[in-house]
Amino acid sequence: MKKDRPLIFISNDDGYQAKGLNQLIEMLRPIGRLVVLAPDSARSGYSMAMTSDRPVTYKLVRKEEDVEVYSCSGTPVDCVKLAFHALFQDVKPDLVLSGINHGDNASSNVHYSGTMAVVIEGCLKAVPSIGFSSCNVDKNADFSCYESLVCNLCSIVLEKGLPKDVCLNVNFPLSPSSQVKVCKQDWGNWHQEWERCSRRDGSQYFWLSGYYESNEPENEDSDRWALEHGYVAITPVTVDVTAYHFMDDLRNWIEK
Amino acid sequence: MKKDRPLIFISNDDGYQAKGLNQLIEMLRPIGRLVVLAPDSARSGYSMAMTSDRPVTYKLVRKEEDVEVYSCSGTPVDCVKLAFHALFQDVKPDLVLSGINHGDNASSNVHYSGTMAVVIEGCLKAVPSIGFSSCNVDKNADFSCYESLVCNLCSIVLEKGLPKDVCLNVNFPLSPSSQVKVCKQDWGNWHQEWERCSRRDGSQYFWLSGYYESNEPENEDSDRWALEHGYVAITPVTVDVTAYHFMDDLRNWIEK
Repeated sequence: MKKDRPLIFISNDDGYQAKGLNQLIEMLRPIGRLVVLAPDSARSGYSMAMTSDRPVTYKLVRKEEDVEVYSCSGTPVDCVKLAFHALFQDVKPDLVLSGINHGDNASSNVHYSGTMAVVIEGCLKAVPSIGFSSCNVDKNADFSCYESLVCNLCSIVLEKGLPKDVCLNVNFPLSPSSQVKVCKQDWGNWHQEWERCSRRDGSQYFWLSGYYESNEPENEDSDRWALEHGYVAITPVTVDVTAYHFMDDLRNWIEK
Repeated sequence: MKKDRPLIFISNDDGYQAKGLNQLIEMLRPIGRLVVLAPDSARSGYSMAMTSDRPVTYKLVRKEEDVEVYSCSGTPVDCVKLAFHALFQDVKPDLVLSGINHGDNASSNVHYSGTMAVVIEGCLKAVPSIGFSSCNVDKNADFSCYESLVCNLCSIVLEKGLPKDVCLNVNFPLSPSSQVKVCKQDWGNWHQEWERCSRRDGSQYFWLSGYYESNEPENEDSDRWALEHGYVAITPVTVDVTAYHFMDDLRNWIEK
């Protein structure tokens, strides 16, 4: 591998065979050396779960010039931790990328997302990190129209870096768009979150389901608003989740 | 059930049989009506993972006056979602509690924690939510010394509420303490995160492992510092993870 090109780590939660991941690989080939270590199958909704009750394994599945792809038995966060420990060791990558996810990770979905878990883990390891997701959940969706946007953003971040506690959550709207908007996380709720089913013996079981509804649908600063109005939404995300604005009030409560 | 007493939902990630959970139940009995729905076994490190690839079930395992305990086949977040959907329906609880976890959830561990996942989910559902964890990982650890602290904090929060995007992450130090400190999340890293093992055929497998090291060990505001100096650390946590402080810079990058 040439040492002068940036080293870029890529993972996701849809698995190493997902079309969105493989399109991201093709987009980034001109920019750097790519190491991909991704789950061996879909891990959607895994958030930052780690595997602690059994061992994790990985294996090389593809090797070309400046591209190595590994599949892993663990979660998205396991993939990042394992790549840094076993593949990179003392050399950190210059950039951590995740996606392109088939399904958006805007609003509170950032908390449940395996895609963004990769990015948050990269940020916790002090590497500039970006997640890409799309409102288009079709497994065959074509994201190639976003090639220049993805490459430009990655080049900017490779050049400028990101603040140590900040990573980026990029979401593409349903229809192709070249308009970009910097956003805040939408405030909303999931409703009817379970589908209740009954067995013959009367016992019940529940399938995760539901729909998301914004509590601030008119807020033009929110990522949900941006996506619904055809913008690419870029939400900067902090991994320092301290509620600084509430510390003084809390001190007054506790001390009194 | 008497309707004038507050309705308190409790869950955890150590499972419904964990000593820490059952001590929390005993502490809260004088304060309110308790509904407990917790995993059927340990789900440590599950973060905000949800179960979407198979159905989830729950069952009543204990019923006494003003205390109902259910076990659930799902994750900590599933437990909250299922309780709100199937047990509470249109009536929200007045308080969501989690723990007492056998193991701390200070610093960046908040991101991996199933205990704090319960709390973040409660907060996303607009209910005041508090997580309790201890540096003591012993499954038989006795947390009864914290009864008055836990009850006082719950009473304050029941009376005053919390800002809509804020929940509380309470961590107890290794040795009993009555000194409380309002803190920020420590900034640090996990090191040597995997234990590498080899099989006879040369193949390798990895067990999650490692140790945490603060990057700011002298920062007296951090929850890690507080715990190491014998304080009970209370870190207010925001569920709005937007990095507001970076939005202007990002807009300048994108627009140029």
